[in-house]
Amino acid sequence: MKQHIAWFENTLELLDQRYLPQEMRYLKLTSAREVALSIKNMVVRGGPAIGITAAYGVVLTAISNYSKSSNNWRSIVHSDIKLLLSSRPTAINLKWALDRMGNLVNNVDNNPIDTLLEEALRIHREDIIYNKHMASLGATLLSQGCSVLTHCNTGTLATGGYGTALGVIRTGYRLGLIKHVYVCETRPLLQGARLTVWELIKDNIPVTLIIDSAASALMQTKKIDWIIVGADRIAANGDVINKIGTYNLALSASLHQTNFMVVAPTSTIDLKSIDGLSVPIEFRDVKEVLSGTMHLNNIWNPSFDCTPAHLVNVLITERGIIKAPNTAKIADLQA
Amino acid sequence: MKQHIAWFENTLELLDQRYLPQEMRYLKLTSAREVALSIKNMVVRGGPAIGITAAYGVVLTAISNYSKSSNNWRSIVHSDIKLLLSSRPTAINLKWALDRMGNLVNNVDNNPIDTLLEEALRIHREDIIYNKHMASLGATLLSQGCSVLTHCNTGTLATGGYGTALGVIRTGYRLGLIKHVYVCETRPLLQGARLTVWELIKDNIPVTLIIDSAASALMQTKKIDWIIVGADRIAANGDVINKIGTYNLALSASLHQTNFMVVAPTSTIDLKSIDGLSVPIEFRDVKEVLSGTMHLNNIWNPSFDCTPAHLVNVLITERGIIKAPNTAKIADLQA
Repeated sequence: MKQHIAWFENTLELLDQRYLPQEMRYLKLTSAREVALSIKNMVVRGGPAIGITAAYGVVLTAISNYSKSSNNWRSIVHSDIKLLLSSRPTAINLKWALDRMGNLVNNVDNNPIDTLLEEALRIHREDIIYNKHMASLGATLLSQGCSVLTHCNTGTLATGGYGTALGVIRTGYRLGLIKHVYVCETRPLLQGARLTVWELIKDNIPVTLIIDSAASALMQTKKIDWIIVGADRIAANGDVINKIGTYNLALSASLHQTNFMVVAPTSTIDLKSIDGLSVPIEFRDVKEVLSGTMHLNNIWNPSFDCTPAHLVNVLITERGIIKAPNTAKIADLQA
Repeated sequence: MKQHIAWFENTLELLDQRYLPQEMRYLKLTSAREVALSIKNMVVRGGPAIGITAAYGVVLTAISNYSKSSNNWRSIVHSDIKLLLSSRPTAINLKWALDRMGNLVNNVDNNPIDTLLEEALRIHREDIIYNKHMASLGATLLSQGCSVLTHCNTGTLATGGYGTALGVIRTGYRLGLIKHVYVCETRPLLQGARLTVWELIKDNIPVTLIIDSAASALMQTKKIDWIIVGADRIAANGDVINKIGTYNLALSASLHQTNFMVVAPTSTIDLKSIDGLSVPIEFRDVKEVLSGTMHLNNIWNPSFDCTPAHLVNVLITERGIIKAPNTAKIADLQA
């Protein structure tokens, strides 16, 4: 299988995740506008993955605009960075990656292409390295023979490769610690059912799919040791913004002796968000929910929700393990 | 619109709920076997509705078998009662209605048809009367301008008519107490999105649909005063077995200053079930969950879950309002 995000001969190739697992369609993108649209339409999704994708988008706009005008290219590239930033509002990794690229745009001399491409490739490579490190860290917390539940998709497809929460699950399984993985289907777009189940089956990891609303009943009737999820943004106080349904799971975990682990690189932390409820939550088109129902505009379709920090037992970043995250511990992490 | 469960010229007519709201298809049934299959396949669903449907099924088998053999008809009818009882395992209204019909089969003299039909019609009529009474009782607990959330379908379609939880919502809205109704789509078969939204729109009641996993985020960000649900079985200690996802909602309600109301006729109470976890939970075909995913057998697809009694703020039956139900209060109700 080709990589799901790949740079090849001045073109960005993306696996179109909307058609998985039935079809493996790849898109070839050559402009920031196409990249922004692909992020908006969820050809690619997952905080780290859209950050990486947007970074390559900056390279694409630099390539076409530097050749046109070696004087004015910076202003056009910055306006494309704004366009890329506006593609989705919640995952902060997008802003983090674009800030890195934007700083370089300001500081690079002469032909910027090689420098910008190097930076995008570095963002991509670092993400994979961080994922594997977080996976090892997270696995140290798992006990032998445990069952885990995850939500949405936090695997290879949501990141540069390997995965955040799903990275911990992969490593935990390889080390013989995890015996079974339950996956919430994750309505409305079924990223759990379509993407996570697909990734786990490819890795021969035993998986059972549940509907989202069965999670509490699952914890009530079977022993689930850990819920392991990713994050789209972590506020300064440790509140976690993640796929809608995550808060449901955290509440339920807190009442069922189930531990709740969040796995995310520090690029997901936003110290400017003082708490989770101040983070802009994306509301998406009601069409995403309209399967099997009649025409209806009255649908409340948030893409993310806020899990208060006190429900998070442990936060894993590439810088280490934080138990019971709070404002002070989050601040220390960034120092 | 024709009635969704109607007796006409020795035939039972059922609105096929699997095709709603897109199509209004009616099935004409003339045998207990067809009735059992219609219950199993969820042509008709909802505890009270399947009890009523099964009662008519007993009339159908009596009609065809009494004419064939006025001596042996009872044993064939009792075997069809067993067949009807086996159609779905969880909702106790099915057993309750079949017990009423079975007792009459044992005690009726001469031609049993009129007596059995009268009893089935009485079960049907009583259910509607009880619904309207429970609706008035439940509405007394609502305050002006409240917002409510409901799950699955507990309206006309799930009962003889009017509805249990949705009956309270209907009456609450008519009295000007409820200002808005949120409805969980209720995966996997979307009875909330397909059936409840349809019933509410027909009644011009303001409704917003949410995905099931958004319920906690809804309570976190908007004021939801009541969650109002029905029940498929209530154990002797007050534990409530209802559509999968109900327990999720009750847990979340308990942490969000949201009251949790259960509305069900006493035919839903089963004193032989000492608690909810001893009730047989139906697991349904994994195909119900397989939309948009690949072939997968590893799906945990319970149709119901158990809400512990301590999470129920109020239980409404046709015999009155019970706050904080427990074993003693449930026992008193039956006396």
